[in-house]
Amino acid sequence: MEQGTADLGVGMVGYAFMGRAHSHAWRTAPRFFDLPLAPRMRVVAGRDAAATAAAAQNLGWEGSTTRWQDLLTRDDIALVDVCTPGDTHAEIAIAALEAGKHVLCEKPMANSLAEAEAMAAAADAAAARGVLAMVGFSYRRLPAVQLARRLVEAGRIGQVRHVRAQYLQDWLADPASPRTWRLERDKAGSGALGDIAAHAVDLAQFVTGERLTGVNGMLSTFVHERPLPSGEGTGPVTVDDAASFLARLSGGGMGVFEATRYATGRRNALRLEVSGTAGALAFDLMDLNVLHFYDAADPEQTAGFRRIEVTSPSHPYAGSWWPAGHGLGYEHAFSHQVVDLVTDIAAARQPTPSFADGLAVQRVLDAVERSAAAEGAWTDLPA
Amino acid sequence: MEQGTADLGVGMVGYAFMGRAHSHAWRTAPRFFDLPLAPRMRVVAGRDAAATAAAAQNLGWEGSTTRWQDLLTRDDIALVDVCTPGDTHAEIAIAALEAGKHVLCEKPMANSLAEAEAMAAAADAAAARGVLAMVGFSYRRLPAVQLARRLVEAGRIGQVRHVRAQYLQDWLADPASPRTWRLERDKAGSGALGDIAAHAVDLAQFVTGERLTGVNGMLSTFVHERPLPSGEGTGPVTVDDAASFLARLSGGGMGVFEATRYATGRRNALRLEVSGTAGALAFDLMDLNVLHFYDAADPEQTAGFRRIEVTSPSHPYAGSWWPAGHGLGYEHAFSHQVVDLVTDIAAARQPTPSFADGLAVQRVLDAVERSAAAEGAWTDLPA
Amino acid sequence: MEQGTADLGVGMVGYAFMGRAHSHAWRTAPRFFDLPLAPRMRVVAGRDAAATAAAAQNLGWEGSTTRWQDLLTRDDIALVDVCTPGDTHAEIAIAALEAGKHVLCEKPMANSLAEAEAMAAAADAAAARGVLAMVGFSYRRLPAVQLARRLVEAGRIGQVRHVRAQYLQDWLADPASPRTWRLERDKAGSGALGDIAAHAVDLAQFVTGERLTGVNGMLSTFVHERPLPSGEGTGPVTVDDAASFLARLSGGGMGVFEATRYATGRRNALRLEVSGTAGALAFDLMDLNVLHFYDAADPEQTAGFRRIEVTSPSHPYAGSWWPAGHGLGYEHAFSHQVVDLVTDIAAARQPTPSFADGLAVQRVLDAVERSAAAEGAWTDLPA
Amino acid sequence: MEQGTADLGVGMVGYAFMGRAHSHAWRTAPRFFDLPLAPRMRVVAGRDAAATAAAAQNLGWEGSTTRWQDLLTRDDIALVDVCTPGDTHAEIAIAALEAGKHVLCEKPMANSLAEAEAMAAAADAAAARGVLAMVGFSYRRLPAVQLARRLVEAGRIGQVRHVRAQYLQDWLADPASPRTWRLERDKAGSGALGDIAAHAVDLAQFVTGERLTGVNGMLSTFVHERPLPSGEGTGPVTVDDAASFLARLSGGGMGVFEATRYATGRRNALRLEVSGTAGALAFDLMDLNVLHFYDAADPEQTAGFRRIEVTSPSHPYAGSWWPAGHGLGYEHAFSHQVVDLVTDIAAARQPTPSFADGLAVQRVLDAVERSAAAEGAWTDLPA
Repeated sequence: MEQGTADLGVGMVGYAFMGRAHSHAWRTAPRFFDLPLAPRMRVVAGRDAAATAAAAQNLGWEGSTTRWQDLLTRDDIALVDVCTPGDTHAEIAIAALEAGKHVLCEKPMANSLAEAEAMAAAADAAAARGVLAMVGFSYRRLPAVQLARRLVEAGRIGQVRHVRAQYLQDWLADPASPRTWRLERDKAGSGALGDIAAHAVDLAQFVTGERLTGVNGMLSTFVHERPLPSGEGTGPVTVDDAASFLARLSGGGMGVFEATRYATGRRNALRLEVSGTAGALAFDLMDLNVLHFYDAADPEQTAGFRRIEVTSPSHPYAGSWWPAGHGLGYEHAFSHQVVDLVTDIAAARQPTPSFADGLAVQRVLDAVERSAAAEGAWTDLPA
Repeated sequence: MEQGTADLGVGMVGYAFMGRAHSHAWRTAPRFFDLPLAPRMRVVAGRDAAATAAAAQNLGWEGSTTRWQDLLTRDDIALVDVCTPGDTHAEIAIAALEAGKHVLCEKPMANSLAEAEAMAAAADAAAARGVLAMVGFSYRRLPAVQLARRLVEAGRIGQVRHVRAQYLQDWLADPASPRTWRLERDKAGSGALGDIAAHAVDLAQFVTGERLTGVNGMLSTFVHERPLPSGEGTGPVTVDDAASFLARLSGGGMGVFEATRYATGRRNALRLEVSGTAGALAFDLMDLNVLHFYDAADPEQTAGFRRIEVTSPSHPYAGSWWPAGHGLGYEHAFSHQVVDLVTDIAAARQPTPSFADGLAVQRVLDAVERSAAAEGAWTDLPA
Repeated sequence: MEQGTADLGVGMVGYAFMGRAHSHAWRTAPRFFDLPLAPRMRVVAGRDAAATAAAAQNLGWEGSTTRWQDLLTRDDIALVDVCTPGDTHAEIAIAALEAGKHVLCEKPMANSLAEAEAMAAAADAAAARGVLAMVGFSYRRLPAVQLARRLVEAGRIGQVRHVRAQYLQDWLADPASPRTWRLERDKAGSGALGDIAAHAVDLAQFVTGERLTGVNGMLSTFVHERPLPSGEGTGPVTVDDAASFLARLSGGGMGVFEATRYATGRRNALRLEVSGTAGALAFDLMDLNVLHFYDAADPEQTAGFRRIEVTSPSHPYAGSWWPAGHGLGYEHAFSHQVVDLVTDIAAARQPTPSFADGLAVQRVLDAVERSAAAEGAWTDLPA
Repeated sequence: MEQGTADLGVGMVGYAFMGRAHSHAWRTAPRFFDLPLAPRMRVVAGRDAAATAAAAQNLGWEGSTTRWQDLLTRDDIALVDVCTPGDTHAEIAIAALEAGKHVLCEKPMANSLAEAEAMAAAADAAAARGVLAMVGFSYRRLPAVQLARRLVEAGRIGQVRHVRAQYLQDWLADPASPRTWRLERDKAGSGALGDIAAHAVDLAQFVTGERLTGVNGMLSTFVHERPLPSGEGTGPVTVDDAASFLARLSGGGMGVFEATRYATGRRNALRLEVSGTAGALAFDLMDLNVLHFYDAADPEQTAGFRRIEVTSPSHPYAGSWWPAGHGLGYEHAFSHQVVDLVTDIAAARQPTPSFADGLAVQRVLDAVERSAAAEGAWTDLPA
């Protein structure tokens, strides 16, 4: 970051898991990348004054507030970073965009399709005024995922025949795990579907450059009552524990998706496999510095999936960190997200994934829910 | 094999890929296992006299014939091994059973549900007379698969939440691959569905000890016209290239299945993952001596999938081959099939998978086809 | 970090690869861990005024200087962090300790055994005055390596029979790679030996809790002349390209070590395997969130190496970062190093690895060099 | 095998582990490969008449004898297959060669260098009379190993910098394992060194096409007294439990070798890694259908070790077995050994590995023993 670089004032709403990850990224990205604007971590907003103030200090924000609305009227804030649970995304993001603030909004973009549509409309309107919005599908920013996308774009996979995407976690496999807000429909919108299937869908659509055109969906809730976090009594689980769905891709291929919090022994395995006429790809978040690539043009005798360690200087983002072979971690994706967002804002260019991309994912989630409610009946998605 | 062991005369119909694998098993099993009956490789039947005679000599059969019906009237033949394409299974197997011959029939058991039902009925009738039938889902006989089944039976997996089964091949990924009989509906019955999804379904049902209760299915044919094997002209592909389906399991779990001949770079990857409340399993045919097992009872600090090399003396079948660590290959499953079948025949005990098990698989395939024809509508399976 | 926590002023010497990694750690550790002292990044020292000032701003230091001696006289600096090439470690570290500053010194601790001995003596003298020294074998601070150590300490590996350690890089495999300072003996001390074999030795001694008692060593320089970084002409390579050695361990086991910059396709593979009477361990830096553990107490049927993803709350350091399954990267080890060093300083407790530990590694490197010069003759190490 | 093919009468001496493996190969090779001569399994020789007769029947030999000398005078025996422990190899093999019989001799070729030299001399003399000898380093015949050799020959690895070979077993890790003949020096010659390091050395020399020019060696015996197999009392262990050595290769590269029976959790891991200026290879017997190949000519972005499943029609031997993706097992290497030996005999061509190759391995083992006895002093090998 050059001296004399203009500031980009940032305000963040929410400071839990995602707030910590975003704060780390705002602090770190400028240290490793030459950014065209200098992020200034102005203020974090939360509900509890003392806790928010403590979070501000701990996470590196200049100040704190209990009113997120304060962020919208401050001249020294150009961007609002929304890290709250999904039930408040629409309200905050739309208000921020209307106030002329760029917005980075965590995924899932919204808890309902209607909210997502309103957000995408607000983003369109804002874009006309030069105000930009991005949704936080951070896994797009892993070097291996970017390399996957580049290989597809370069034609190395050819026509896509199959996409296989799974997001496997196991933190609910134990029936004694508590009934947190993530298991309440009115707060979380949905369960595995919105929380992690959303990532799988975005990843598949991003890497292939295609859209799902329809689905057959299935949802399950295996454990209907769980102990409350307070330790007293139990509460109902009102979201899905697991989701699976078949899909057609816009290019004619088939998709198979699965997301669950009951995959015993799989802590956080977001896996993607893509098979095409010219090659194939495989990725697993549990080995996030690696992309497996099969080139069908290789002679049969020496053909095989290549285990590419995506850590060399020519790999996406990697050259700004360490020498080849020094792996990155989960949170680096958030730093890359900051890099790309700040770069796009400086260039007055639409960042991706846009709210329209987020809406596309939301439409898939909605279609899966409707299909599941109709015993898996085929449910079209808009082109 | 003890001296003085009674003979078990065997006749085989068909001598192509499966005939070679079965012949190897009949020759080899008695050399490594103590069998209660001594298999005698009496005769192989085929359509072309010269080719069948050559096959007999090459594969180790005492004689050959162009009439499979000859096998049914010979006193020195107690078992008929059916290795022909699926369109002739029903006729041969039923006739053999009615003639009082035990039957080993390759999978898929039949090309249609009606045929499979007739075969199961014939097997039931024969069983009442002490004549036994088995269907050749050979992968059940891999040591790793047997160990998987034992772990489920012993409660080490607990209640099954998820089954994920894929059979991935890539020999049709090249659009220039020829239009063989396997791509003709009247000969092969179906494509990836009957050929390889059948294995995935049987494997899942066998390992879990559960049945699928219904499906949402999807089939695709990506390449509709291919060059004829003769080299002259092209012919239509009338079977599915790929199949995927969602399922419910009888125990309440979810299943996701996929079978394709277009998984570029995956030569023959039959993969199974089972997640339960007490543990999890993972298997891949491309690493067939290994079973991955996660025990949820392990303390968190040292919990992880165990890479079990299923080659130790205490592992299924393994002790009869080589010392620990000396891996087996694909064809060993067929030798184990012979061992188990001969043992059951000697004990006058129903071998598994029975024709009823084969029918259960066939019902799933049929339900997938019907569901796929109805855009994936939910299709129940009989309990 | 609580408000009111006392400050720990830090000055750093050098700002290249290691300086960047250390700076990141000083910035980041307090954000994720509750530290008993608050690190203050006071000043960075370097040779070029402008470049050092730019580095200070970029890496987050309050100021800069061209005289590292300035750090020794400042009251607001309690700790000197030495990130220079090895030829200056002894001078700076000893001076700092004598000036009453705690020292964190990058590895290899020194370029010669004499220097290392002087440093260890200085550290001993300083310790008597409450001034503490630590050498930066950062890989000890990876969660998987800490877990490995804990398992050995807990007796889960039993008596150690074998240690197999390799540090494989490939950045010199191309003969056209330039002749940097790392290939000059007077600056770097040695080549692969001091740079990466040092890590392998420390890792082996740390995890096993044993010392090497003697070695048979071999060194090679494959390419003796390389293009100068300036692009004009070539310069001689005066260090080893690769080192290998056999060793005895103090507990009676055998060690095999290898370090090279010519392992084509291996970017940065630091691998350790330990075999004992009760179990075994395997680690590879290219998959740094994973430890493989074999428990010989498991029944044969279910025994196998467990792939432990060392990312769960109960794993070393992991709970302070993200939920289970969210992997860490290379630089996290440096943050953990800061955590442990600051914690020990606050507790007036000797941090590890101490300069005595660093000296122990240096003695091994020296013995390997002497052995290699004597055609691999056995060379004892002091007990 | 064509009708009318001339016979090749075979007599085998010994019928334990190796005898079973060889018998399977003699029975099986002609079923899958077109051999120019038809092996006839005439007779097996052993010490105990009843046990040998039973073995003959079980393993498929026409007859049995208690005098191996009988094989040398029978006109219907053209080849003697020596599967006894190493202490009788020299006597039998030399006598057979002098009697004009081709010889296949198990490894290690002999228990001493003097014996091996006598055998190699006998083989040379026999070759002048058209009588051929081969030593049974069967792992050369795995498809993945053959492919490795071909890649080196084709220049795809370039100049070899490093060879890393390990043969890791764990059957002695338990101190209660019995003191079998393999642990007695007068019967077995040596322990891990002759039994398994021999394989590692042959593999390394075969794949690279180079010879070791000298070694620094180390041997260990960890457990000096073990229970006798009889169950009564204990007996001394008089061979090495583990061996490790450094080596120079004739092309200037470095070698690191290790063999042990104490690698807890590693049942039978024969691993080879070769690094060269143009590429690299990695192989592990525990995943024997796979070769990992890194091509340094690949662009950095898509470079990575390729996991080649060596099961396609164009791969060595593979096309004679099953379709692509159907893996082979341990014993297939013995069938391939038969194929190559019979083919060479029919062509009156020296088979490999020759007794000279076996002697080269024996010289390495001898040098390691002498070096180990001299505390690892450098020990040259003849060019």
